[in-house]
Amino acid sequence: MRIRLDIEYDGTAYSGWQRQKNAPSVQETLEAAVRSATGERVALHGSGRTDAGVHALGQVAHFDTRTRIPPEQVAFALNFYLPDDIRVLRSSEVPDSFHARFGATSKTYRYVYRNHAQRSAVFRNFCAHEPRLLDIGAMRRAAAHLEGEHDFRSFCARAEDEKGTVRTVSSIEIRREGPYVILDVTGNGFLHNMVRIMAGTLAQVGKGNLEADDMPAILEARDRRRAGPTAPASGLFLVGVRYGH
Amino acid sequence: MRIRLDIEYDGTAYSGWQRQKNAPSVQETLEAAVRSATGERVALHGSGRTDAGVHALGQVAHFDTRTRIPPEQVAFALNFYLPDDIRVLRSSEVPDSFHARFGATSKTYRYVYRNHAQRSAVFRNFCAHEPRLLDIGAMRRAAAHLEGEHDFRSFCARAEDEKGTVRTVSSIEIRREGPYVILDVTGNGFLHNMVRIMAGTLAQVGKGNLEADDMPAILEARDRRRAGPTAPASGLFLVGVRYGH
Repeated sequence: MRIRLDIEYDGTAYSGWQRQKNAPSVQETLEAAVRSATGERVALHGSGRTDAGVHALGQVAHFDTRTRIPPEQVAFALNFYLPDDIRVLRSSEVPDSFHARFGATSKTYRYVYRNHAQRSAVFRNFCAHEPRLLDIGAMRRAAAHLEGEHDFRSFCARAEDEKGTVRTVSSIEIRREGPYVILDVTGNGFLHNMVRIMAGTLAQVGKGNLEADDMPAILEARDRRRAGPTAPASGLFLVGVRYGH
Repeated sequence: MRIRLDIEYDGTAYSGWQRQKNAPSVQETLEAAVRSATGERVALHGSGRTDAGVHALGQVAHFDTRTRIPPEQVAFALNFYLPDDIRVLRSSEVPDSFHARFGATSKTYRYVYRNHAQRSAVFRNFCAHEPRLLDIGAMRRAAAHLEGEHDFRSFCARAEDEKGTVRTVSSIEIRREGPYVILDVTGNGFLHNMVRIMAGTLAQVGKGNLEADDMPAILEARDRRRAGPTAPASGLFLVGVRYGH
């Protein structure tokens, strides 16, 4: 049977979702827990990669198993073996036609800026620090230019690795919560580093280094050098993945 | 001159505000930073203690200094020497009549329950886990009995160390945010473990193990054994301290 996992992780200690040098990956840590719980060596398919240091509140993955553990109990069995910075929130049986990556119709990412003169002690691993006051009105006007179907090549770290660079961003919501500015970005797919480059570019607008109306020209240039810097990994969360409509 | 500090800390690695065995205290870590920044050995006076593992978003402390660092720059100087789980959010000169402890007129604490079958990976050090669904309507009715001036001896860990056990709780606000239940408690003073015992008792009501209308008898008993368990330190935050009216 095929099992879907909904997964939360603190990415601070990991090389990212996928195996890399120097640090364990979230994927291999989960595969090791499946092996401990079921005795099976499985390949876990995630909805997509997250970079080193990026977090997830709702990553989705699937694997095939012959285990006799009831599907909804698999979460408890895996959590018994997992380190406490990775938690399986839910496990469920899905049809063999379900695919965590190919079936995903949209994803939501969140980017969190700490917008205060001083860094946060409590949330230090879960935000990026921006000491200058961000003008969220200007950021919203800039974000409106990025919504819709566009060629996001200017917002892509390695365009040569992508089959195409056209994506649809269905919404970008920006709000202030105390000393934090939070960006929620939903789209049908994301290029490498796309959300972090969007967050870095929108912060430039928030600080007055770019204008909201610069966005169309940045998109049209199809040139990574025209957009702003890539915002730090620690501020990014994969919030959720949707399947079907 | 007298300097007021507003301080955020992740209490996970500390023995609490005040010096204890086994782990460094927040107070001595701040005093060491003052010594590094100013060359002075000072006594830092906090608004009150927090237990081992308890966090603060707005602890307040003061100290007297002859430093020539401008008062508002002291925060930056201390943060240079502090570990990243303690941050001074703001520093300001205050009159010599200001006292962080004796001048405090009210404090707000927050208690955070993770109310989901599985623990959180991201916020694992910043909440307590309660897998059973909490009835926040019942918790609010129970909390209403605790608001106002009462003898909180039943909600005190070591009543024999206190000069008196009457306190005024001006408000208890309870809300659900996604998989979290958050309690904000404001009062003119708090006994040892009082918020954690209130949180533990209100959770018993939320799970149906106690009734909201049991609260008056628990208060009247003036007996710690009648209230619920002390909720874990990791879920507690000192949110802020008010001075004057």
